[in-house]
Amino acid sequence: MTRDIVISIDAMGGDSGPAAVVGGMVMSASKNDEIRYIVHGDEAELRPLIEKHSALNDIVEIRHCSDVISMTEKPSRAMRSGKDSSMWGTLKTVEMGDATVAVSCGNTGALMAISMLRLRRAPGVDRPAIAVLWPSRSAAGHSVVLDVGADIRAEARDLVQYAIMGVEYARQGLDLTTPRVGLLNVGTEEHKGRVALHEASELLEALAAEPDSGMNFIGFVEGSDIGSANVDVIVTDGFTGNVALKTAEGTATLIRGFLRDAMEHTVFSRIGALFALTSLRRLQKRLDPRRRNGGVFLGLNGAVVKSHGGADATGVSAAIKLAFRLAKNGFTQKVAERVAKAAKPEGHPE
Amino acid sequence: MTRDIVISIDAMGGDSGPAAVVGGMVMSASKNDEIRYIVHGDEAELRPLIEKHSALNDIVEIRHCSDVISMTEKPSRAMRSGKDSSMWGTLKTVEMGDATVAVSCGNTGALMAISMLRLRRAPGVDRPAIAVLWPSRSAAGHSVVLDVGADIRAEARDLVQYAIMGVEYARQGLDLTTPRVGLLNVGTEEHKGRVALHEASELLEALAAEPDSGMNFIGFVEGSDIGSANVDVIVTDGFTGNVALKTAEGTATLIRGFLRDAMEHTVFSRIGALFALTSLRRLQKRLDPRRRNGGVFLGLNGAVVKSHGGADATGVSAAIKLAFRLAKNGFTQKVAERVAKAAKPEGHPE
Repeated sequence: MTRDIVISIDAMGGDSGPAAVVGGMVMSASKNDEIRYIVHGDEAELRPLIEKHSALNDIVEIRHCSDVISMTEKPSRAMRSGKDSSMWGTLKTVEMGDATVAVSCGNTGALMAISMLRLRRAPGVDRPAIAVLWPSRSAAGHSVVLDVGADIRAEARDLVQYAIMGVEYARQGLDLTTPRVGLLNVGTEEHKGRVALHEASELLEALAAEPDSGMNFIGFVEGSDIGSANVDVIVTDGFTGNVALKTAEGTATLIRGFLRDAMEHTVFSRIGALFALTSLRRLQKRLDPRRRNGGVFLGLNGAVVKSHGGADATGVSAAIKLAFRLAKNGFTQKVAERVAKAAKPEGHPE
Repeated sequence: MTRDIVISIDAMGGDSGPAAVVGGMVMSASKNDEIRYIVHGDEAELRPLIEKHSALNDIVEIRHCSDVISMTEKPSRAMRSGKDSSMWGTLKTVEMGDATVAVSCGNTGALMAISMLRLRRAPGVDRPAIAVLWPSRSAAGHSVVLDVGADIRAEARDLVQYAIMGVEYARQGLDLTTPRVGLLNVGTEEHKGRVALHEASELLEALAAEPDSGMNFIGFVEGSDIGSANVDVIVTDGFTGNVALKTAEGTATLIRGFLRDAMEHTVFSRIGALFALTSLRRLQKRLDPRRRNGGVFLGLNGAVVKSHGGADATGVSAAIKLAFRLAKNGFTQKVAERVAKAAKPEGHPE
């Protein structure tokens, strides 16, 4: 078996340190015989961690980087003085074509800044975006939400590109042929919302009407639709998307807390909780942010998977799995083709 | 006992019709002997509903209105042609001083438009806001979030006024002396977010530093802080606030669905669910949108409580209870004083 999908990994940056990253690499490598890794970080620290695991024998190349970008580093500073960092090395390896996709648990802002610098925007893309998989009641089990924080602004044109990129991601990540796309707004009535949203809505309607668009544009959706069965790709600006994502995380935490209180309230409910334990564990697993880990940077010349800063081995392994799928399916090229194709009708008498 | 707190009620507009509204009036009147009502709607329909309940004897005045504003009516149209509607009548009764506070389950956009027209903005307020109580892990059990949809834009000056009004609401509604105020942003690092947020942050820091400000400004917060114990008043523009509110509602619905699935999965978990039933019911009650019902319109010459369109008697009663508290405590006057006081230092060498 040839291991011909190469993933470039930043072993440092995360909150849990290189041991969690190596743990994730082991988990993925033992389930997948097509993966190879190029891993970046302090070689003296990494080599013993890696050599402990026979699953990683001969499938890891270590590239030494002397520096680490901290979680609190400002993106602008990371871009100026991060050249010896593991994050920089990870992206340079993709830039040079040695790997197809990058994985990092590090500082999101710095990762986006260095990704833009090293990989550059894909032709025709003004604003790259960060997309996440959001648990939902739809058949696929998840929807795609973007942008969740690459850029706090988005013009109509950017929202249209987010839709195109998000659709391709949903096609690859959720196995959907014609994903349903919704624009996040404050109401589904036409008179509500911002001007850029109305422009984007008109553009998307025209785009979806083209033959072979591969997109089903359903118009405006609201925050309550994000986890519903109504929509597969939710498009918004990075400010709103980031607030929505974190609000949902906060709500899940709040409810888990309320549930814990409720369960501990009486002897009966404690007995009940004991019986219900396996079911509650199944629920926990479904809501577990480690398992739906891996935001993806879209719109660059190369895919970048941003794992949660606090990810453990399970979380890192989920991010690697996602990176593998994207590399295997030629995701970056397919997005570039879609964006180029959509750009063509500009100047059309629409 | 004199019943000297008069509440002006729109009996029509909501999804559940006048029976739910009258039901809520009965629930509140039987628990509270200081309330009187002036109720607006179709007299032929209302009189028999009201006369059935002895709790409402002699404490209700009916003002006949021949028209109803539908849930889908555009605000602009409601303003032009809604003069004979129950909503219009409800606000006119407050405008004329016959009641202190208005309650309606009707169309939010129309209610805000007519409220602005009849009650007008309080002196010095540019943009009124809609505030909601959000369940949280703090000691008070709720936080105040505003604006959740009165206006999709907000300048720095508006955000500062939202903070002032939200603090007064938290003082009255949550019994807090010095509420903690946070500005909703995409990160707590200073280099992140929009310009208006940074301006507002500086203004609020100066305001909170004044003696007797009654406000503890804690800086930027994120979506995940909204339901946490970290903050009492969360300030944002109406677009972001509306998306956050609906995303949280959607997440709660999603989790309830997952929980139901998990509980029904095995015989053991079904037995568990049976034992845990009372606790789950307690949880349900805590999350019940009917019980935390009642958004409040702030920044007008008179308080307006917007009850959920689908509210049943319990929901309407919760909205009436909130309206009563605001009327009893002279809420509108106190907000006006705070806004005027905060406006004074303008032109200060800050």
